[in-house]
Amino acid sequence: MNTVIDAHTATDAERTLSERMHALVTRLYPICRSITGEGVRESLRVLGEMIPLTVHEVPSGTQVLDWTVPLEWNIRDAYVANERGERIIDFRRHNLHVMQYSTPVRARMSLEELRPRLHSLPDRPDAIPYRTSYYKEAWGFCVSDRQLQAMEPGEYEVVIDSSLTEGSLTYGELFIPGETADEVLFHAHICHPSLANDNLSGLVVAAYLADEIRRTARRYSYRFVFLPGTIGPITWLALNEDRTSRIRHGLVLTGIGDPGAFTYKRSRRGAAPIDRALQHLLKWTMPEGRVCDFEPYGYDERQYCSPGFNLPVGCLMRTPHGTYPEYHTSDDNPDFVRAEKLEDALKLLTGLVHLLERDRRCVNLSPKGEPQLGKRGLYRSTGGSGVDGRHLALLWVLSFADGSCTLFDIAERASLPFSLLEEAAADLELAGLLKSSGRP
Amino acid sequence: MNTVIDAHTATDAERTLSERMHALVTRLYPICRSITGEGVRESLRVLGEMIPLTVHEVPSGTQVLDWTVPLEWNIRDAYVANERGERIIDFRRHNLHVMQYSTPVRARMSLEELRPRLHSLPDRPDAIPYRTSYYKEAWGFCVSDRQLQAMEPGEYEVVIDSSLTEGSLTYGELFIPGETADEVLFHAHICHPSLANDNLSGLVVAAYLADEIRRTARRYSYRFVFLPGTIGPITWLALNEDRTSRIRHGLVLTGIGDPGAFTYKRSRRGAAPIDRALQHLLKWTMPEGRVCDFEPYGYDERQYCSPGFNLPVGCLMRTPHGTYPEYHTSDDNPDFVRAEKLEDALKLLTGLVHLLERDRRCVNLSPKGEPQLGKRGLYRSTGGSGVDGRHLALLWVLSFADGSCTLFDIAERASLPFSLLEEAAADLELAGLLKSSGRP
Amino acid sequence: MNTVIDAHTATDAERTLSERMHALVTRLYPICRSITGEGVRESLRVLGEMIPLTVHEVPSGTQVLDWTVPLEWNIRDAYVANERGERIIDFRRHNLHVMQYSTPVRARMSLEELRPRLHSLPDRPDAIPYRTSYYKEAWGFCVSDRQLQAMEPGEYEVVIDSSLTEGSLTYGELFIPGETADEVLFHAHICHPSLANDNLSGLVVAAYLADEIRRTARRYSYRFVFLPGTIGPITWLALNEDRTSRIRHGLVLTGIGDPGAFTYKRSRRGAAPIDRALQHLLKWTMPEGRVCDFEPYGYDERQYCSPGFNLPVGCLMRTPHGTYPEYHTSDDNPDFVRAEKLEDALKLLTGLVHLLERDRRCVNLSPKGEPQLGKRGLYRSTGGSGVDGRHLALLWVLSFADGSCTLFDIAERASLPFSLLEEAAADLELAGLLKSSGRP
Repeated sequence: MNTVIDAHTATDAERTLSERMHALVTRLYPICRSITGEGVRESLRVLGEMIPLTVHEVPSGTQVLDWTVPLEWNIRDAYVANERGERIIDFRRHNLHVMQYSTPVRARMSLEELRPRLHSLPDRPDAIPYRTSYYKEAWGFCVSDRQLQAMEPGEYEVVIDSSLTEGSLTYGELFIPGETADEVLFHAHICHPSLANDNLSGLVVAAYLADEIRRTARRYSYRFVFLPGTIGPITWLALNEDRTSRIRHGLVLTGIGDPGAFTYKRSRRGAAPIDRALQHLLKWTMPEGRVCDFEPYGYDERQYCSPGFNLPVGCLMRTPHGTYPEYHTSDDNPDFVRAEKLEDALKLLTGLVHLLERDRRCVNLSPKGEPQLGKRGLYRSTGGSGVDGRHLALLWVLSFADGSCTLFDIAERASLPFSLLEEAAADLELAGLLKSSGRP
Repeated sequence: MNTVIDAHTATDAERTLSERMHALVTRLYPICRSITGEGVRESLRVLGEMIPLTVHEVPSGTQVLDWTVPLEWNIRDAYVANERGERIIDFRRHNLHVMQYSTPVRARMSLEELRPRLHSLPDRPDAIPYRTSYYKEAWGFCVSDRQLQAMEPGEYEVVIDSSLTEGSLTYGELFIPGETADEVLFHAHICHPSLANDNLSGLVVAAYLADEIRRTARRYSYRFVFLPGTIGPITWLALNEDRTSRIRHGLVLTGIGDPGAFTYKRSRRGAAPIDRALQHLLKWTMPEGRVCDFEPYGYDERQYCSPGFNLPVGCLMRTPHGTYPEYHTSDDNPDFVRAEKLEDALKLLTGLVHLLERDRRCVNLSPKGEPQLGKRGLYRSTGGSGVDGRHLALLWVLSFADGSCTLFDIAERASLPFSLLEEAAADLELAGLLKSSGRP
Repeated sequence: MNTVIDAHTATDAERTLSERMHALVTRLYPICRSITGEGVRESLRVLGEMIPLTVHEVPSGTQVLDWTVPLEWNIRDAYVANERGERIIDFRRHNLHVMQYSTPVRARMSLEELRPRLHSLPDRPDAIPYRTSYYKEAWGFCVSDRQLQAMEPGEYEVVIDSSLTEGSLTYGELFIPGETADEVLFHAHICHPSLANDNLSGLVVAAYLADEIRRTARRYSYRFVFLPGTIGPITWLALNEDRTSRIRHGLVLTGIGDPGAFTYKRSRRGAAPIDRALQHLLKWTMPEGRVCDFEPYGYDERQYCSPGFNLPVGCLMRTPHGTYPEYHTSDDNPDFVRAEKLEDALKLLTGLVHLLERDRRCVNLSPKGEPQLGKRGLYRSTGGSGVDGRHLALLWVLSFADGSCTLFDIAERASLPFSLLEEAAADLELAGLLKSSGRP
């Protein structure tokens, strides 16, 4: 069952772009998402106000690769109340208080019995941890360690009003067709409840990028998928196995709103064009960013890069998962995400799309000796002094445009930004000195 | 004429392994070995008490590649006596006092005449140097510089009761057959008299390793050769030319008992599996060790690596030859060799054998997406927190086991120790997620 | 119209080599060269006293690749005089005072009108800059900034007594035939007026090198070309397109007399033999020198390396163009060029020629095991102590002379100077252990 949501922009025209992006994070934050259930549907409805998402529903029990789509989980209420009837742990105050996929429970028990069901972080006593038990039936509560230590012996009322029922796994997809069937894939996971950087940042930046791409002409087709972690891409890959060979470049977007510098994790291929492009763009536009090698632990690139698919899909983050103390706790809230960091991420991705769209093989039509640039108005007329970057870029393009490499290859070799080489190539094409000879 | 020596262990059960190894060095130390002669035979008899060595005798005059097996040298006595008949240089006090392969002499001469025949080390005045003249007829004595400076003018009686006769070159060999004809070669030179690190350390560690290997099941066949330097491997290569193509990995063991860190010298091939394996094992188990490139000067790897053979044979040392002051002097005695260093060398080589035996190509049987490890008991059930090395190893094996590489290749790429990957592969095979697809 | 100039040496026998080289720089310095005209002819006449140069004249208007040979420019006089008739800028005092290729002018004008025609260097107030306008009709004067600042308002008489007429582009060439048609190309530009390092240094060193090469036996043929910048190599390439495939190695010589260390800029190929040879020679003989990658901005290697030719031509400089303050100013005078630096450059190039001439593939005729060097007098007879560089070189040649690589390849791998390997190879050939198996 697929539903097309009509898109319309609801953003406040008086806000700046970065403020609008951050406001969307804040709006999505309170929704209790999980790998299935109403929270995902509600989040897709909000994103669908901006871009024309198709919503897919895949029934529980569907076999997807080595996995099975689980029962749908929904939750209405949950709490632990003391003998005075006070809710001392209350799902209504924070989604994270309940372990994801907790089975229903309604019981009275001593603190001693309850204790193994309570998760806290002694090292970070004010934060509520995020815990899940998707594939093993269990229930539990997550609390700040300070709260836990304050609990007194006695009898507690324990209620989780959840349901695990035959339902479906929900995901959103937007396909933006281009001149060719070659696809660029952007993926953001949508399964985390009330965690802002992980991954409302990825969802919001992806939505804004999609909105930008669909408004401009393009060579590639673009596919945006908003999927629950692990089971989501596994489901998508199972249902779209025949389409995966069209994916030329792909990127998992996650945790890109925190104050840290960018981290790009290479695809399993290691030197795919997407890997080289991100390295190049970080170097020239966000030089504090770093690039690290693929490893099979991490985010959903794991599925796209599994050896049976081995797609050129990398992962763009800021501070890597697990290395910032707010990670997977209630401290990963909208305050932790910076408006300007969201906009920087969008800018980086816009640059990536520009590079992918504009890269091409070129051939110097006057390859013997340097062509006389002066008579074509491409060279200052008085010689003897230095040279500027723009002129250098002309020379690099002429020198290496022999059809064996692309403009981006030349940019890497020249150690000049792609944009400069691309402008030079455009000037040389206008002057009749260069012609495009094909896609990368 | 080949003789099989019955093997039986004579080691003292009350000593630790390292003490037993060191005791064997001490026992072999006083024997006057050379490139031929009774000293080699006696040393092989002692080693034969432990492992069933085959002793080969190759007659003098045999043509071996570009060389000829020399006359057999034996020595009974040698001294220089002063006018009072006192033996001021006495072979009975130290084997090193006579230059190896000295021709017989019985003469009286002045200090002036004798002087050019006396070798000492002015920089290390208490040490007797080690000198040889295998391939040019000559005689000489080696003395400490202090002793030399104390010699007074006068007439000296000079006696070397040696013989150079048609005989044979003697060497020991142990072949331990495995499942396949592919061989791993271990070589230790046996020609040095009363030098402990160079190379009783190599001989003793090799003997203990051989003893360990022959008691366990194995895929490879193993060959241990105890040969005199240079002429030994040349002789062995000449007599076994047709067998050399079976050698998949080889190692020259020499100077591995001194207090220094390990040095592994790569084979001429530079990146043979043996080269990569030693680099890996040193990194993970003896990180102070270092690896250096092949050069054609050094130990007997020179012969195995000569361009007509170019075998994958490296050289394992501790402090490299010529770079420690005790090298080739009477200070390279059993005190210079440390019991625990011998045992560490044995441990490193046991790890090497484990790696070679257990390395294999594997194929992930569920290569599309990650297989669900949880339902197979290979994953903790509560998610949200970190990951341990064992789990990481499972992911690495699954991610790269596409039949194109071996577990060791994956260990190198993952920068994880081979043993961890090997355990992960075993777990995955048990779970039906992986199958071996062949030898490296 | 080509003219052969008879060669005879005119150098003062009482001067040292380096003094003679520097004296030639000083003699050539005052001549007003440009890309065409009498100054080039006069300079070639002077160089022709030393080596038998062929002088070529290519008529104005000749189409050469994408360019056209320009009109010939000559200049007799030029000045700016004040109201008192004093020549305050005077071409007779310094060639650089007139912008190269200035069109004739004879006018009176105010300082305000004249000002845009006056070029100076505010950062270097005492130096006259070097400016050109070869391909756009213009005129101008170059003055020190101090001089410019001192000019008072008023009327000035402006005279440039130059001519731009149908004539020819003049260049010099010397071809020294060798055993084979394979060529080594040396190029030096001859178009700069009164600039000493750039490029009288290159011209003079090239002339001395040519003189040395023509007096000795040689395998390669050598071609020396003395050409105006840019239009020169473009003209030569256009006229000699069919010969370019014979060029095995080439070098642009420029700015090699200043006090700085050598800089070698690699050819576009990046790892051509010329690139590796210069790197090797700098490392072993001028270790303060550095090597940098090709970029398409620089000297005339740009033309030889253009993608339609892609010849293995690098560029040897000392301090790179544009990075020393004297560059392209009147401070690049004979005092800036050091006699001993010219001789060092000649020495480096002599070493290069030696390497190119003597490099060859070799085959070890005794490749199984090491051959017995002792019986061939190639090894000291008493063993036990160290090894020297000469012996090491013998072992490296024997170990790697398997026909797959050249002596220079072995020198690089051994990290030993080529000369040492070459001597070792000669010894081994004499001993019958090695034979040459062909050219690189």
